[in-house]
Amino acid sequence: MSNYHPLTEVEAIEIAKTIPGIFDSEGELVSREIGDGNLNLVFHVGQPSTGKSVIVKQALPYAKVVGESWPLTLDRARIESEALKIEGRLAPGLVPEVYHTDNELALTVMEDLSNHVIMRQGLIEGGVYPKFANDISEFMARTLFFTSDLGMNQQEKKLLVHSFANPELCKITEDLIFDHPYTDADTNSFDPHLKEQAEKLWADTELHLEVAILREKFLTHAQALLHGDLHTGSIFITPESTKVIDPEFAYFGPIGFDIGAVLANLLLHFASQENWSADEASRQTRRQYLVQSIREIWVSFERKFRALWNEHGTDRIAKTAGYQDDYMQRLLQDTVGFTGAKMVRRIVGLAHVADIDRIPDPIVREKAQRLALEIGKSLIKRNRQVTSIEQLINIADSASKA
Amino acid sequence: MSNYHPLTEVEAIEIAKTIPGIFDSEGELVSREIGDGNLNLVFHVGQPSTGKSVIVKQALPYAKVVGESWPLTLDRARIESEALKIEGRLAPGLVPEVYHTDNELALTVMEDLSNHVIMRQGLIEGGVYPKFANDISEFMARTLFFTSDLGMNQQEKKLLVHSFANPELCKITEDLIFDHPYTDADTNSFDPHLKEQAEKLWADTELHLEVAILREKFLTHAQALLHGDLHTGSIFITPESTKVIDPEFAYFGPIGFDIGAVLANLLLHFASQENWSADEASRQTRRQYLVQSIREIWVSFERKFRALWNEHGTDRIAKTAGYQDDYMQRLLQDTVGFTGAKMVRRIVGLAHVADIDRIPDPIVREKAQRLALEIGKSLIKRNRQVTSIEQLINIADSASKA
Repeated sequence: MSNYHPLTEVEAIEIAKTIPGIFDSEGELVSREIGDGNLNLVFHVGQPSTGKSVIVKQALPYAKVVGESWPLTLDRARIESEALKIEGRLAPGLVPEVYHTDNELALTVMEDLSNHVIMRQGLIEGGVYPKFANDISEFMARTLFFTSDLGMNQQEKKLLVHSFANPELCKITEDLIFDHPYTDADTNSFDPHLKEQAEKLWADTELHLEVAILREKFLTHAQALLHGDLHTGSIFITPESTKVIDPEFAYFGPIGFDIGAVLANLLLHFASQENWSADEASRQTRRQYLVQSIREIWVSFERKFRALWNEHGTDRIAKTAGYQDDYMQRLLQDTVGFTGAKMVRRIVGLAHVADIDRIPDPIVREKAQRLALEIGKSLIKRNRQVTSIEQLINIADSASKA
Repeated sequence: MSNYHPLTEVEAIEIAKTIPGIFDSEGELVSREIGDGNLNLVFHVGQPSTGKSVIVKQALPYAKVVGESWPLTLDRARIESEALKIEGRLAPGLVPEVYHTDNELALTVMEDLSNHVIMRQGLIEGGVYPKFANDISEFMARTLFFTSDLGMNQQEKKLLVHSFANPELCKITEDLIFDHPYTDADTNSFDPHLKEQAEKLWADTELHLEVAILREKFLTHAQALLHGDLHTGSIFITPESTKVIDPEFAYFGPIGFDIGAVLANLLLHFASQENWSADEASRQTRRQYLVQSIREIWVSFERKFRALWNEHGTDRIAKTAGYQDDYMQRLLQDTVGFTGAKMVRRIVGLAHVADIDRIPDPIVREKAQRLALEIGKSLIKRNRQVTSIEQLINIADSASKA
């Protein structure tokens, strides 16, 4: 029945040609597959004569992670494309523009952002992004508020929940973030020197209870349309511009999960700073920059989310005295818990981060890993008591000085 | 396009005839419309020669409540029918058997339960139902556990959530239970002597915060497939048998909402006992029976839900130390909050209960109304502190003696 097949570079050009208003009808188009082939084909289709280009991204019917390959729904291309369109409408300029979607071929033609770098790589190279805290807080405040029951007609939201049921990709998160790191699972992967740390994790029942409760929130709290995988590898950046990409994990879940993803990846980079500076002073400067980013992201997010709530709250219940304060407090606590969960999984779980894994010196790498684990565990354990973002920062700071 | 039209009694017979294994091919069938015409047509189709009968229930494309009429989705017939089938599979014998469904005609042919009475009416007439606590706790424990992430494959659950998106009927609950009673809404309806009580309700900001949080749970916490309207008018009963009917409000929501509906309606009947006994002693006996039912329902529900969890928990996370206790405590708190919300709306909101409204003496009726309001408000305000069902019972007992 299906017309699906992996595209060739020539076919990618044929599709790119059909997008009106991009290319000159004269000049030749050149196509180059630039993906890593693990999940998607990514074609860069450019026209040298005009300098114009687009990206043709096509989902593959499988995922390859660390040598393993398993089948994975092509429907994720539809979800990614629909999420990008919604995010683009709600947070203009903060996602790539979508030019064309073909659900049968599982492909999206979108704006080429080759002038940006992947933020994880940018940070590793010492990049500083003065607009980031403002942009990402804007992206989260607007996409999350306007798809929640606070900022959207509640009946329309129920129908939208419907089209973002995303069981296969949610399952990956449920297993790899909220389950496997806390038991001796085959999928786990960690350096041998972390064996003892991992075993402590597997035996820590206080931690397990908090993870079970966070997982329950991920499974049942359909607060807003999440990006669902908002780490620094899903962000294209320059000092002047921020573009959030790859929302194939999008679904309706707890708002704190997206914010936690951003903060966790900044904290993982914070932990990686055991390596990146020869001297203590410049390491401290870098860490202060990261901590200040985290503070600004939460504070700006909270300010913007509250402002949207005050101006665009859907109904009179949203104005109930004390409700906004109570909600924001719970949101901060969720954020802290999910931040922790997203740190721990990057040290002992299946998928790691380059910030830490690529530290060449094993002693330095181990220090960074232990620090990330320590911060992650503390955040998970204390999440339900937190009342201020400064507590999250203090946990990171004290652990780094211990 | 649609073939939908309201059936005649003759058409109901034609449909009933097609059900295999019920009627004798010889004997004549007799059809009688027995619904109240507000939401549904309900045909009793019987065969006098064999004594066999079925119910043909057809949704009407509107709802009539207290003289008002508004359009209402026919899709509720599909939802009701699917919910009955799931409930029947999970809790055999506790719902009417479904013989046939026709989504286009918005109809369900089901078991005739005319030998039962509607429980609300049975209670009003002084009925005692020794099997009820056991049956309803069984119904709730099994239907709620096995449709939750604790007792069902989480990916299959996400697809089921999908087919029970029920925006129009949820909207009725969101408005009539979690909004209108707490403001001077047109839909509200109460006796003039309650004006001052109603105004207090509209000004009680402590109460409003708790209601806003309960409403948020109703909107976002997709814990399990709820019946969604589990009051004593949705239960057919005899001393030997319990049958839950009318799950047209079914959707995935917070488990405490169903339990709260049952407890609230027993407490409304408890409050109505200002009237039903001439003497204090028999009133006390009746109230003790109701209180004992409430206690047994919660205690049995908790015991059964925990037993199912221990035996059929989907995954290893369900076995996390302390998680079950934490979950059951939150479930009790939700139950207490929703119990309160479901009491308050029956006194000042649009739809009332006969237990109280039909008390002929206005002075006695007012006492019952004030008592129900008092209990409801206390339960809402204290819900997040409750740790035992005895606290709910104490709130009701003390209020009745004040």
